[in-house]
Amino acid sequence: MSSSEKFEGWVSMNDDDHQKGTMEWKEYTPKNFTDDDVQMDIICCGICYSDISTMSAGWGPPIRPLVVGHEIVGTITKVGKNVKHVKEGERGGVGAQSDSCRSCHMCDQQLESYCANGMTGTYNGKYTNGSGNSFGGYATKWRGPGHFVIPVPDGLESHVAAPLMCGGVTIYSPLKRYGCGNPDVQTVGIVGIGGIGAFGLAFAKALGAKNVVAIGHSPNKKDVAMELGATDYISTGDGKTNPLLEKYHKKMDLIIVTANNADQRYDYLVQSLRPGGHVIAIAVPEKPVMPIPMGAILFSGGNIGGSAIGAPSQIAEMLQLAADKKPNFMIQKRKMSEANQAVQDMVAGKPRFRYCLINGE
Amino acid sequence: MSSSEKFEGWVSMNDDDHQKGTMEWKEYTPKNFTDDDVQMDIICCGICYSDISTMSAGWGPPIRPLVVGHEIVGTITKVGKNVKHVKEGERGGVGAQSDSCRSCHMCDQQLESYCANGMTGTYNGKYTNGSGNSFGGYATKWRGPGHFVIPVPDGLESHVAAPLMCGGVTIYSPLKRYGCGNPDVQTVGIVGIGGIGAFGLAFAKALGAKNVVAIGHSPNKKDVAMELGATDYISTGDGKTNPLLEKYHKKMDLIIVTANNADQRYDYLVQSLRPGGHVIAIAVPEKPVMPIPMGAILFSGGNIGGSAIGAPSQIAEMLQLAADKKPNFMIQKRKMSEANQAVQDMVAGKPRFRYCLINGE
Repeated sequence: MSSSEKFEGWVSMNDDDHQKGTMEWKEYTPKNFTDDDVQMDIICCGICYSDISTMSAGWGPPIRPLVVGHEIVGTITKVGKNVKHVKEGERGGVGAQSDSCRSCHMCDQQLESYCANGMTGTYNGKYTNGSGNSFGGYATKWRGPGHFVIPVPDGLESHVAAPLMCGGVTIYSPLKRYGCGNPDVQTVGIVGIGGIGAFGLAFAKALGAKNVVAIGHSPNKKDVAMELGATDYISTGDGKTNPLLEKYHKKMDLIIVTANNADQRYDYLVQSLRPGGHVIAIAVPEKPVMPIPMGAILFSGGNIGGSAIGAPSQIAEMLQLAADKKPNFMIQKRKMSEANQAVQDMVAGKPRFRYCLINGE
Repeated sequence: MSSSEKFEGWVSMNDDDHQKGTMEWKEYTPKNFTDDDVQMDIICCGICYSDISTMSAGWGPPIRPLVVGHEIVGTITKVGKNVKHVKEGERGGVGAQSDSCRSCHMCDQQLESYCANGMTGTYNGKYTNGSGNSFGGYATKWRGPGHFVIPVPDGLESHVAAPLMCGGVTIYSPLKRYGCGNPDVQTVGIVGIGGIGAFGLAFAKALGAKNVVAIGHSPNKKDVAMELGATDYISTGDGKTNPLLEKYHKKMDLIIVTANNADQRYDYLVQSLRPGGHVIAIAVPEKPVMPIPMGAILFSGGNIGGSAIGAPSQIAEMLQLAADKKPNFMIQKRKMSEANQAVQDMVAGKPRFRYCLINGE
């Protein structure tokens, strides 16, 4: 059922392509185009750490040929007859998910990213209707289910919108769900000042939190964190003391953890929460089962929770907020033609704070 | 600074009193009476498992002489001049906490059970103003800070009100905090159908939850759970399968865990939650650090949290609900004079579901 057409993009065939810079630009066979699909000419695509975890087989052997990239913005060139919310010539964006069952009670509630029947990733997946495999945005064209193509509002640049499609909504979603900016959620912490943490600081400010506390390992990122939207910076140092707890004991309303190191001290975080507050992890830690200090949870009255990406309706809401408030995201443009180098730079931790690959530059 | 007066009660001097039935009825020296205090003639006192954990030194060596009991209802006989909310002759209740700093940001928000400076237990504690040690309700008289004496509303029997003071509010508090009965919190589970679980079923129903799911180890308690307020009963059996998840996958809004066994399967519970739902533990597990499946938390979008007893304002609210709705609590009266036997029966797991020691019967 795959298409007879060919697309071109950066194809990964080896587990060490991210280290050696050996993705190859070549043809691959996209899914068959159906009446439910949309096709786009890709304008740009953000680099997400998931791209590297997948191509390196860090999350298990991927389906090869593999084309990664799930922070895609493009110009819509073809619209299946069942797709009503976008038109040819408009800009659309696609995030980490490009299909779900659309019939379960989660999908019915616009919670597609928690689909009770699983989800299809924008790359490294198989569409369940048998129309082919999914391929991502390190390429010139993308096609897939129109339901997961979100209109990009005017006033939001494509290279800014793209990294929001996965990285942005992954942290926007729990900030919104747990009321960031509401009268009782005014003190919000972001642990880990990397690509997603940077979005977190910017969105926490945009959502109206009065106190946005950046929590980093070293003091090095203080200035840039304040520029992104933080009102305070806590350096946790060696983790043996707890400067967050000393200053914010029972005062944090919400803490989002973007760090996925196995030795993350959740007890310190929980003890900083006010009763009913939330520590929300958004990156799968290296250890799938993490020891949680139940005593700290009981006597703080706090919660440790998780959140996974975001649904199309949340992405649309987030893009509108970004268009309206223009938070200070720090996105660096890279050429699509230099994707191999950009991936190697990403692995080396160089982005400040997010790379976006641009076609035709 | 202790009083020159003497009170009489069941004094525990040995770690095995709960097994041997060797608490002794004798005199002890209560705290000094201050202008902030209230004194009561004890009508009755519930038996809480904390009483046993404390007298057996299960939570560390207690202060002896020890008089346990922190589910107290009495007739107020003496009111310090700084206490304005109760009068002599009225009924008052005291729960597990009888003091806090009353000046921190938690106490200011009526969250005294999460006082940033710690709390004084109703027994096995020392009042921080130097007025003496705290002694509980297996006795004829109680005195302590009036702020923690809650008026018992008319229409609520004393032997029903007493066990609510600790056991009741411990489960009422998280049910209320996490919105039990609100439009988006209609499916609520209670894990462990013991003394506190029974209160949970009754309060979940009283708070208006449409679906109240009792979750027990064996099928034996199904009938009584339905009588208490459950609308469904799930027997988890040997824990190798997950009948809760099979029936309620991503459908539970809130689950309260009253069980404290170290092998409690939190992954099954979390996977049954809808995104943003809560699993709330209210009993400290045998292992203080519990392994939590972070993957399950991320992909469910759920939370694992904790809750500790309840503040005076919540106790007052709960007592009024109990007086108004008269939920089907199952409280068994025991004679105060037979406290030793009642404690041994409690250890043997005999109550269906809560014992209350009655003075003068």
